[in-house]
Amino acid sequence: MLNGKSGVSPGTRARVEELVDRYGYRKLSGANRNNVVELVFRELESMWAVEIIRGVERVASKHRVGLMVSRFGLHDSPAPAWDDTVARRPNCVLSVAQLSEAEREQLQAKGIPFVVFGPTRELPDDVPSVGATNWSGGRAATRHLTELGHRRIAMISGPQDVLCCVARLDGYRSALKAAGLPADPDLVVQAKLTREDGYTAARDLLSRPDRPTAIFAANDLLALGVYQAAREAGLRIPEDLSVVGFDDLRAVSWVDPPLTTVHQLLTEMAIAATELALTLGRGEQAPQTGLEIATTLTVRESTAPPKD
Amino acid sequence: MLNGKSGVSPGTRARVEELVDRYGYRKLSGANRNNVVELVFRELESMWAVEIIRGVERVASKHRVGLMVSRFGLHDSPAPAWDDTVARRPNCVLSVAQLSEAEREQLQAKGIPFVVFGPTRELPDDVPSVGATNWSGGRAATRHLTELGHRRIAMISGPQDVLCCVARLDGYRSALKAAGLPADPDLVVQAKLTREDGYTAARDLLSRPDRPTAIFAANDLLALGVYQAAREAGLRIPEDLSVVGFDDLRAVSWVDPPLTTVHQLLTEMAIAATELALTLGRGEQAPQTGLEIATTLTVRESTAPPKD
Repeated sequence: MLNGKSGVSPGTRARVEELVDRYGYRKLSGANRNNVVELVFRELESMWAVEIIRGVERVASKHRVGLMVSRFGLHDSPAPAWDDTVARRPNCVLSVAQLSEAEREQLQAKGIPFVVFGPTRELPDDVPSVGATNWSGGRAATRHLTELGHRRIAMISGPQDVLCCVARLDGYRSALKAAGLPADPDLVVQAKLTREDGYTAARDLLSRPDRPTAIFAANDLLALGVYQAAREAGLRIPEDLSVVGFDDLRAVSWVDPPLTTVHQLLTEMAIAATELALTLGRGEQAPQTGLEIATTLTVRESTAPPKD
Repeated sequence: MLNGKSGVSPGTRARVEELVDRYGYRKLSGANRNNVVELVFRELESMWAVEIIRGVERVASKHRVGLMVSRFGLHDSPAPAWDDTVARRPNCVLSVAQLSEAEREQLQAKGIPFVVFGPTRELPDDVPSVGATNWSGGRAATRHLTELGHRRIAMISGPQDVLCCVARLDGYRSALKAAGLPADPDLVVQAKLTREDGYTAARDLLSRPDRPTAIFAANDLLALGVYQAAREAGLRIPEDLSVVGFDDLRAVSWVDPPLTTVHQLLTEMAIAATELALTLGRGEQAPQTGLEIATTLTVRESTAPPKD
């Protein structure tokens, strides 16, 4: 069907449709937009990309909407892939990449609704987003350690220009306060969210005379770096050192000992975000456009009461 | 541009293009096909899906072709997602899912070229495919163990209706033969390609009085199951037991000890497969349509000479 405009007679319209059919044009759905949801990453490196893709695919195929995946690197500016995304006029965009204001305005100008997945920066209230309860997760991880009796609990925190890292660190501080423990700034080490940085940070923490009895790492990769530093220092987990991570990557249940960590429901977050994006793509109002999906603490074998 | 047919006058053609432009039709590339490569999975569960997606995305964006990802479950028959894939008329299909003969015929009837990624079953010679050198990989893994001096080398093999598993097992047997060692059928255990099955199989092997001094597992998940069984049996890796895997999932460099394994260049395989699919999608001849990309052995710390 043509989209409601009426400068053409029914005869012409029929002829156009017939020609279109014969010569390779196809009708787009909705307001000139293709029947696809476009999932945009900045990088496809992360271990959790596939969990997000899985959730988006599930919802897209339920609604018989195609799923397009694209990526624009951190250092392409202006990114040709992004221009292609805009030019393809998808039904809606779900962006794991953090969109700049200019990019958001570009989508708005084209009438393409979008949802930001796991915002890493503060967004204006009117930008739809789906994230995890990072503050609550950080608080739950730390409370688990205080309840086991730990008093010297370090945190290896991520970069403080990343919103989820700020929230996890604040959750840590909040749990310490709730347990009546002082927040010793020496026990917080900043690191990039990699295994290598976790190793370096933990080596520093564990070499101190008053080393912590527990470490909360802002993500699982950091926690795996802590494992390596503990092994090299001859410290056993959890007997000599308790470790908690954040994310619950599948691999952390395979390491020895299996890691206690904060579980992010990435697939469920992706499902919620896609449903929201498709609702907006249909031009409908969504009941809410800013969601945080609750994290849960998965207790495995890397945590125990301190020895003394 | 219209696609070469000439039943329309230039004037009509211009008018169609103008109407198309105004009313929301867009030209498809090639013979009625959309400018996308469609990447089809049976399941999006595997840890290596993202490595494949990354390679496909890299090539697709280089050629300014969109990447569509879809999945049709093992038990949907007929699969609506598959019908949607065919109906979308992509430029070409890259299928990680194993296509049935009927599915291949459907694509052929629509003139949609396709490439099978990592074929798990024997395919007719005219079906384009890109895989890994599984036989050579299995042979290299086993030769590494024989060269370390192992004489009792077990293999936890995958299902024998999966072509890559047959090839890896044959590579194992071939290396034993080359080393002048007998192939003891008792030392080959069949398992599904999961960590749990690797654990069960290894528990059996390691409880025998004449237990093997080395185990070659047909994939990394199986090898991680061997790690758990060895821990529970009080056996140290590599001092008491050498272990080799297959795949080189990112996580296996994080476990203790880091796993020696056969590295599959999944991203490179995906790049080659996508280039091939796009070549066929342009209607061009490809220099070759059946490729195996060489595996390499990554030696880490899970292998050592046997104690006696």
